[in-house]
Amino acid sequence: MRAAVMRNRALVVADVPTPEPGPGEVLVRTLACGICGSDLHALRHADKFVENSRRAGNPRVMDLGRDVIMGHEFCAEIVDHGPQTTRALKVGTRVCSRPVLMRATGPHSIGYSNDDPGGYGEYMRLSESLLLEVPNGLSTEHAALTEPMAVGVHAVAKAHLSPDDAPLVIGCGPVGLAVIAALRLRGVRPIVAADFSRRRRELAAALGADVLIDPAQGGPWVSWREAAVYRDASRAPALPSWIAGPAVRPAVVFECVGVPGVLDELMAASPRGTRIVVVGVCMEPDTIHPMLGISKELNLQFVLAYTPDEFAATLRHLAEGEISAAPLITGEVGLDGVAQAFTDLASPERHAKILVRPSSR
Amino acid sequence: MRAAVMRNRALVVADVPTPEPGPGEVLVRTLACGICGSDLHALRHADKFVENSRRAGNPRVMDLGRDVIMGHEFCAEIVDHGPQTTRALKVGTRVCSRPVLMRATGPHSIGYSNDDPGGYGEYMRLSESLLLEVPNGLSTEHAALTEPMAVGVHAVAKAHLSPDDAPLVIGCGPVGLAVIAALRLRGVRPIVAADFSRRRRELAAALGADVLIDPAQGGPWVSWREAAVYRDASRAPALPSWIAGPAVRPAVVFECVGVPGVLDELMAASPRGTRIVVVGVCMEPDTIHPMLGISKELNLQFVLAYTPDEFAATLRHLAEGEISAAPLITGEVGLDGVAQAFTDLASPERHAKILVRPSSR
Repeated sequence: MRAAVMRNRALVVADVPTPEPGPGEVLVRTLACGICGSDLHALRHADKFVENSRRAGNPRVMDLGRDVIMGHEFCAEIVDHGPQTTRALKVGTRVCSRPVLMRATGPHSIGYSNDDPGGYGEYMRLSESLLLEVPNGLSTEHAALTEPMAVGVHAVAKAHLSPDDAPLVIGCGPVGLAVIAALRLRGVRPIVAADFSRRRRELAAALGADVLIDPAQGGPWVSWREAAVYRDASRAPALPSWIAGPAVRPAVVFECVGVPGVLDELMAASPRGTRIVVVGVCMEPDTIHPMLGISKELNLQFVLAYTPDEFAATLRHLAEGEISAAPLITGEVGLDGVAQAFTDLASPERHAKILVRPSSR
Repeated sequence: MRAAVMRNRALVVADVPTPEPGPGEVLVRTLACGICGSDLHALRHADKFVENSRRAGNPRVMDLGRDVIMGHEFCAEIVDHGPQTTRALKVGTRVCSRPVLMRATGPHSIGYSNDDPGGYGEYMRLSESLLLEVPNGLSTEHAALTEPMAVGVHAVAKAHLSPDDAPLVIGCGPVGLAVIAALRLRGVRPIVAADFSRRRRELAAALGADVLIDPAQGGPWVSWREAAVYRDASRAPALPSWIAGPAVRPAVVFECVGVPGVLDELMAASPRGTRIVVVGVCMEPDTIHPMLGISKELNLQFVLAYTPDEFAATLRHLAEGEISAAPLITGEVGLDGVAQAFTDLASPERHAKILVRPSSR
């Protein structure tokens, strides 16, 4: 099959062996696969990616000396059933799946692996037990957004929001946009969001953000504070006489940038008791001043991925139109366009999510 | 009055003006005041202490060019009542108080201040509304431990422990020992605790730790894992077939060291989903690898001090003998001995808590 392969730390289109489905697995044809910021990181900081993965105790770390076919945000079509499958879903059925193979030896990642190709190839194998049929009427492109949007649904779930919490989303790339969509889905308002890029602020508005902030014009906290004032005075706690201004709701920040320095900046500027949900994937070492966290009793909740239930629910929300992810898709490429798409995604003014269609030329 | 004064970044004994109680305040004679690790930090890293305090938004930051009388873990005796006091507690009553003055302009810290002397001086002023009478039968020395023990009570409260959570205490200095006492008070067992110092491990055992670990002999996690196995199999979650060994309870780590590097080490070694309560006060910048937190969905809860209720409850627990803090006190000095005591406290084999008795010579 043809695939966009990470080989010698570059992306090249190559002919590689078509995977064969093992016991309990199906062979699928990739219909569409989104390019994730983590893939950009993994290509640019491949050694760090591998080192972090090893240090975190991942039992199966990819070998950069061998081919890797990335791509973990996919919608696919069943082509063949492997041994020991129930064949409950027929050949030709469109499916989504979490990007993981469930095997007797444990879960195997799809996409960050030398042996289990991801969606930047024409074919993949998937675990039959993890397949979710794409509901009628949901387009292949939007079904491929299940994975990235589930990241937002999970981050918001892990925030354990109370009705009074007032959210602030830092960074409106695909992860921040997914968080905004998930906040909107839960009816948490107003949603305050910040990004240096005008294009991304427009996308944030399209996905449901209420107040958009350009950090070049000043930090987000002044606007957040205005938006977070209790509208219902009976819910506001009594403030001591020496605190000026109205009572504001508790802050819950979603850090969706993943660049060194952002966390410490947020810790310095956050009000006392702020919960910071770290969704942006920073693969480099980062310096914080713990004293800032201590003096304000901050909480940092690092989050990753989603539960199986959250993934399935996200696909349903997309099918029901409860998450309107359409504005997210800003481009489509064939395999020959993947390398250029990786480059293009570095510019926030042009793109949010580019879909790869391995079968198109 | 006489006081041990921080002057030009050194501790000297000097005659300074006796404070005068303002409206709502009382003048007290310091009976005993514990030396806190934060005071050691504040003396050694004075500039960083001030810089962090300013960056965290503290409205009243001490000026290192002027005298500072530290000491915030005290038991004192009422000597005089200022204007606008109720005099509900008579002259001669032994009292404890949170180390803060409540004024119309807001709370003013006692001890890290140029204007409000702490317990390393013969006299202090305290807010009458914050005074807690020391119950009959509780010694002055143990009453002076209310403040440091309340830090442990608060840290454990902020951990929001569920019945299944299995604690691990890293560092058995006064803060770690206070956490151990508070865990024991709540009946959370077994308590696993680690410290390089044999003396401190002995103190940890005396305060209620069940399993003591010398990190020089290997990391704490093997012993923690053994101790954290579910004894009641019906409570244990079902584990997938590829995970070897018995199910272990969720880890809640209390970081009571406060030295750069410890947090990242804990993040690297912690099991998935671990909650790390950061109690140790690290005043220096610290480097973490956010990817470790993300890949294991760790939670960091930074904590500081205690609530008024926790402070009052701690005094009651000490009076009722429910917290046995006696082993913590390893020395007593007069004002002339404070500078040497600061030096001695650097050796974990000799000391945990040294009490200053400003009136003794």
